[in-house]
Amino acid sequence: MKQITGGVTAAKGFEAAGVEAAVKYQNRKDMALVYSTVPCRVAGTFTSNVVKAAPVLWDRNIVDHSPYAQAVVVNSGVANACTGKQGMDCCKAEAECLGSLLEIPESAVLVASTGVIGAQLPIDRIKAGIEKLAAAKKDTPEAGTNAAKAIMTTDTVHKEIAVQFQVGGVTAVMGAMCKGSGMIHPNMCTMLGFITTDVNISKEMLQKALSADVVDTFNMISVDGDTSTNDTLLVLANGLAGNEEITEEGPDYEAFCEALHFITTYLARKMAGDGEGATCLFEAKVVGAASKEEARILAKSVICSSLSKAAIFGHDANFGRFLCALGYSGAKFDPENVDLYFKSRSGEIHIFSRGAACDYSEEEATKILSDPEVTVLADMHMGEAEAVAWGCDLSYDYVKINADYRS
Amino acid sequence: MKQITGGVTAAKGFEAAGVEAAVKYQNRKDMALVYSTVPCRVAGTFTSNVVKAAPVLWDRNIVDHSPYAQAVVVNSGVANACTGKQGMDCCKAEAECLGSLLEIPESAVLVASTGVIGAQLPIDRIKAGIEKLAAAKKDTPEAGTNAAKAIMTTDTVHKEIAVQFQVGGVTAVMGAMCKGSGMIHPNMCTMLGFITTDVNISKEMLQKALSADVVDTFNMISVDGDTSTNDTLLVLANGLAGNEEITEEGPDYEAFCEALHFITTYLARKMAGDGEGATCLFEAKVVGAASKEEARILAKSVICSSLSKAAIFGHDANFGRFLCALGYSGAKFDPENVDLYFKSRSGEIHIFSRGAACDYSEEEATKILSDPEVTVLADMHMGEAEAVAWGCDLSYDYVKINADYRS
Repeated sequence: MKQITGGVTAAKGFEAAGVEAAVKYQNRKDMALVYSTVPCRVAGTFTSNVVKAAPVLWDRNIVDHSPYAQAVVVNSGVANACTGKQGMDCCKAEAECLGSLLEIPESAVLVASTGVIGAQLPIDRIKAGIEKLAAAKKDTPEAGTNAAKAIMTTDTVHKEIAVQFQVGGVTAVMGAMCKGSGMIHPNMCTMLGFITTDVNISKEMLQKALSADVVDTFNMISVDGDTSTNDTLLVLANGLAGNEEITEEGPDYEAFCEALHFITTYLARKMAGDGEGATCLFEAKVVGAASKEEARILAKSVICSSLSKAAIFGHDANFGRFLCALGYSGAKFDPENVDLYFKSRSGEIHIFSRGAACDYSEEEATKILSDPEVTVLADMHMGEAEAVAWGCDLSYDYVKINADYRS
Repeated sequence: MKQITGGVTAAKGFEAAGVEAAVKYQNRKDMALVYSTVPCRVAGTFTSNVVKAAPVLWDRNIVDHSPYAQAVVVNSGVANACTGKQGMDCCKAEAECLGSLLEIPESAVLVASTGVIGAQLPIDRIKAGIEKLAAAKKDTPEAGTNAAKAIMTTDTVHKEIAVQFQVGGVTAVMGAMCKGSGMIHPNMCTMLGFITTDVNISKEMLQKALSADVVDTFNMISVDGDTSTNDTLLVLANGLAGNEEITEEGPDYEAFCEALHFITTYLARKMAGDGEGATCLFEAKVVGAASKEEARILAKSVICSSLSKAAIFGHDANFGRFLCALGYSGAKFDPENVDLYFKSRSGEIHIFSRGAACDYSEEEATKILSDPEVTVLADMHMGEAEAVAWGCDLSYDYVKINADYRS
């Protein structure tokens, strides 16, 4: 497997576009299209929030019941969440509009929205945007990048990736884009993410691979502990790579899962590091845990702790906060049996050993914590299980961005 | 029942002191004593964090096994948490030192600490402070206030209260002090809190009243979602009011519980409103919930949401964030059936009604949200259960306070 340039248009048969539709703001790309020239198998994971945005309900139905999907239309600016029947009508209007332009059934059109909750979509501007998208779609890397830029909200960088890998004797490609910076605490999946691939894989195996993967990737990141109403992760597989259909576990399925995992890990880290106001990617790694589930709980508790996040922002080796966060996670352990380390490209330091602070250099600890990627490593000395979670620091800018997000 | 001036020294037979001991900082009171001239029944609730500070382990043992307690010594600056055997030895040394000065057994001395986790107590300065405390203790209101000031860390105001009430035909008094501003997300009790009363009540009924009360008071507040390693709430009852001992449920027990609830609610609100960096007390009230437990979960989810807290700081009627927080709380409900209101002393506004936004005035909403005490009211229309939770907004100062807490 190797990383190649490009994003959602990298795989055979995929086109994309990003255009200005003035959904909420002027002079920025705010609508995106991903389109496959042939029908795709589709799998998806969605928010676990009881309050689900209209597009989540629309897509869930398509993933569960449509024989195939062929296009995704996305807007930023307005989330189409908490919008009642009118919100569902908007999803249908979008799918009808795009479907008639592209000559595909509305049941093959997925929709996604991100932005302010509670406002209705400006459906006339949305429809005008869809017409622009249908006219602009191309299979070039630039078209993929335009789409990735159009789905951004408070993101500071667009997020896309593509890889090439061997499967069933042929060369296949998987590409992806995602957005996510605030209201990021996926529980089941996260944010908006779109993965395209030309691999030939059954719908069952596609969903299985996706569901298994998110547990250790998108579900292990958090920016602010707020699980969005709109979290959506979709994979479209159009089969144009020409491999024999993957219908069961085996070397081909593993190759597919490996590519998927590479892409989702990359995007999950990218999203955490670009958390609202973040100055640093904050990684918590737990080893020696009693079980995989406990390792995940412990790691996630650390990256979710406001006080730990503020300490990382301040480059402050206030290790008690990390221990405290491990302690209230819900996992059982003996504090007298824990080792804690800080790691970054600037070095590694042993900070706490089985019940008491180590004799460490504050200066060295501060240097390690001043890196743009910092890892807190906890060894629980209970078993063999490991997990990694990704978050970011808590900065003044997080407050600034969110105190007047709507203005 | 009526509120009276004073705090922990208001009830008969209680003395207190607050002195400068330079535990961590110079020129501020940082050690406190609460003392009863006669032995007391004691009840306590403690942190649910797996990582428990040494004083929590010490006090837990006394509450469970000592026949009585008679004094509490508290320091701020250093939390004596994650300090191993040396930390436990410090608790014992403190109890021995105070016990010999006051001529009471060490098993009657409770200890509590708050401050930086991971550092050892400077035991020589602590012992010198205990000598000062023993010499300074008085039964005056000023002595109680000195104690309340000595236990502050990032608190901006000291927190104390006292009430007078009738029980078993006599006039009784209950007083209290607490501290708490950051690392506040009690799960079982919270922060440091000390309640003194001259009521005659059995140990069993004292613990029963306390354990039942915290579920709807201290356990319903959160500043930052971080459950401390040191949370401790103690009630000392010395019986000097002269009422017949309360040994079972009935009017006397109810009078006691009413006074207790008045005091704990006051202190819980006070602590939330004085959360680190807070500019406002942020209250979430849930009515019409299916069960009391679900009402609590829903209310607490709203006040814990970083995005909701930031919206309150910005006086921004971004109601979708509150709905989102209700949605990921874990409680089940139908979003199409929810009504949402904003309330403060500046007015009340209906913001969301059963699936969609109301036609409200942004200007009026902003005015309501600009008050120093703001309530978000959610009516779930499912049943009769209600709950209230208290938090605060998320401000720049929260980040400032916590990015370099130790320096």
